[in-house]
Amino acid sequence: MKAAVISVGTELVLGQVVNTNVAYLAQQLNKFNIELSPQITIPDAQTQLSQMVKKLWKSDDLLFVCGGLGPTNDDLTLASVAKGVGTTLTTDNQYWEQVKSNFRQRQLKISPKNICQAQYLTGGTPLDNPVGLALGSWYEKGGHCVIILPGPPAEFKAMVTHSLLPKLQQSYSATRQISSRTMHFWGKAESQLMDEIDDVTADLGRVVITSYVQPTEIQVRLTVHDEEPSSAKQLLDQAQELILAKEREYYFGVGDQLSLAQVVVDLLREQGLKVTAAESLTGGLFQSTICSIPGASNVFDGGFVTYAARAKEQLLGIDPATIQTHGVVSAPTAAAMATKCKQLLQANIGIGFTGVAGPDSLEGHPAGDVWIGLAFENRPVITKEFHLKAYAGRQAVRTEAVQSGLQMIYQELQK
Amino acid sequence: MKAAVISVGTELVLGQVVNTNVAYLAQQLNKFNIELSPQITIPDAQTQLSQMVKKLWKSDDLLFVCGGLGPTNDDLTLASVAKGVGTTLTTDNQYWEQVKSNFRQRQLKISPKNICQAQYLTGGTPLDNPVGLALGSWYEKGGHCVIILPGPPAEFKAMVTHSLLPKLQQSYSATRQISSRTMHFWGKAESQLMDEIDDVTADLGRVVITSYVQPTEIQVRLTVHDEEPSSAKQLLDQAQELILAKEREYYFGVGDQLSLAQVVVDLLREQGLKVTAAESLTGGLFQSTICSIPGASNVFDGGFVTYAARAKEQLLGIDPATIQTHGVVSAPTAAAMATKCKQLLQANIGIGFTGVAGPDSLEGHPAGDVWIGLAFENRPVITKEFHLKAYAGRQAVRTEAVQSGLQMIYQELQK
Repeated sequence: MKAAVISVGTELVLGQVVNTNVAYLAQQLNKFNIELSPQITIPDAQTQLSQMVKKLWKSDDLLFVCGGLGPTNDDLTLASVAKGVGTTLTTDNQYWEQVKSNFRQRQLKISPKNICQAQYLTGGTPLDNPVGLALGSWYEKGGHCVIILPGPPAEFKAMVTHSLLPKLQQSYSATRQISSRTMHFWGKAESQLMDEIDDVTADLGRVVITSYVQPTEIQVRLTVHDEEPSSAKQLLDQAQELILAKEREYYFGVGDQLSLAQVVVDLLREQGLKVTAAESLTGGLFQSTICSIPGASNVFDGGFVTYAARAKEQLLGIDPATIQTHGVVSAPTAAAMATKCKQLLQANIGIGFTGVAGPDSLEGHPAGDVWIGLAFENRPVITKEFHLKAYAGRQAVRTEAVQSGLQMIYQELQK
Repeated sequence: MKAAVISVGTELVLGQVVNTNVAYLAQQLNKFNIELSPQITIPDAQTQLSQMVKKLWKSDDLLFVCGGLGPTNDDLTLASVAKGVGTTLTTDNQYWEQVKSNFRQRQLKISPKNICQAQYLTGGTPLDNPVGLALGSWYEKGGHCVIILPGPPAEFKAMVTHSLLPKLQQSYSATRQISSRTMHFWGKAESQLMDEIDDVTADLGRVVITSYVQPTEIQVRLTVHDEEPSSAKQLLDQAQELILAKEREYYFGVGDQLSLAQVVVDLLREQGLKVTAAESLTGGLFQSTICSIPGASNVFDGGFVTYAARAKEQLLGIDPATIQTHGVVSAPTAAAMATKCKQLLQANIGIGFTGVAGPDSLEGHPAGDVWIGLAFENRPVITKEFHLKAYAGRQAVRTEAVQSGLQMIYQELQK
């Protein structure tokens, strides 16, 4: 089933407002397996809108028109859509009385223009607006349907949830099934990860696999169309198993809302462990990331930012000879940072970050070179070298270093 | 002048990602008086995209196509646009060598598919990608122009700013004169700031004043249309002077690319001062913000994250009686944190952050209550209480606390 959407608003065309409504609508429509495409944005312009409605509303099953339902002169949506589909407007008199009495109660003067907020497309039905004034419209003819929704995100969301979705449920419940699952990865180039995943899942043609890169992870989405929930789940399980057999090292979880920091903090809490850090190039970003998770105080008491060599010696008590012999950006320095901060905080886990955020190189190491040391309980200290994306800038190197450190802890927590 | 944009991405069509790129692009094009409409979003689908490009690219002066430049199988934009405008693809061999050497430096395996990230439309010119791999394309023919840009917002923004805008400037500078200036503020509600600014600039009708709120500042944009540069400058100077007479306390600079952290680091460096911090609720975010500025090592050696009371006592040597008597969230604790970290690092400036990030309250203090202590050279220690936007969430409180601390330092640096 197909749907198109026209977002109306000069503020959108000028870029003064980011359009969050279409993403929300698309998500809701996915549940009915309705694809929302194309998504079109145009200014508040009567002729352009009515022509576009005329052209589009019979090419898809559903056409949504969002925004421009206010009482001011630039709100032209209702009349333009009516013209586009060849109908007129009807006033909901009972609702109009209610609007007027609302204004009286708030001791506000009502404008005659407000009557348009009590109107809907003649031959259709009004859609309630639980948090605003303007009604929406639902208008069907010849197997096609036009739906008008308000622009302000709070009103939009409320009308979609309370008025639109129940009506869609009635009309289109017997359509297709869509099942999906998001797996989360870190530490491999997207192209390589997806090549390998494509290889191992080549025989699972029914599962569509796509990837999406964010600064802190690679999301891999598995989707199955037109299957009963139980057999869709089987297919998704099968794909997940094949992928994990190959990529478990880089995987940290499955679910819609999930971050590596959240996963690590949850595991530390479950296992009753406390973490601390000594940070050079990351400058506090690791600790700040841990603290961004509610309940971080269960697993973190404090730690050090040791940016200069002097601070590494003075705050952590690292032997100056270690730094002189091996350099600041080295395995021994990273190991010493991890060990010393763990001791000083009496923590179960200490992690040390040292490296070159850039843009300049340091001691002969190019930007992006990072050493991370991990002292985990009584296990031998681990050190690992990374060559991070220096071309993406200083902040990206620091974010990648933090994620890589979280992953090292995650991997030890699994053992 | 007219432009259209096609955003390509199944993740947009499914509503998994909100499209922030088009709003950013529209804002930038406004400066050239180019209206970005229609704005169309479609999935990664080769035929649909090439047909739409074929149809649209000669109807407007400019057509932007954004997204789908990655190295995986679902990234089809480049080939589809080439087909739509009737050209082929050219590989930038020098750049391809550079991409390969990047992968070698990071010790990652490169996929042959990555070559598409070094390709652009034959007959056009490549657009540099300062923070990612994929090149963009600029292709002109018969008075029409197609421009291909990457999808990930950081890459998109960087390519627009560094590669696209200078080229637009060359090609379309002779349209309208628009002179503008951005002033930066922190520490006052936007509505109050703008009401006051509107009052003091009421007589300057030629200067349009708009505001834009970001998590770390309020930007106030002054714009003059259709004036010679010299008289536009006079008008902007006049407006700036009137605004500063009223709001200097909340102001921290003027310019397009400017952050409070950058301004503070620059001033510290000029004055030869070093700063350190002891952070509780901010968990390292202040120090991490300082370190995000290149050259931070000139003004920052290191510092402490003291999340738990125990860490405040143990790492900083704060008298447990101070915390017991006054509480963790108090002026005396904030002052002690500032003084102690300054001493321990032998820094010129010490700053202490303590408070409640939320969501829960602490010791009877609601989320959003924050005390900041500032020990600046030999001046008496300053403490200040803040009631920050708890309803915006834990991360917003922490970001606001850091900005408020930076502003306290900025104000002392002015004295």
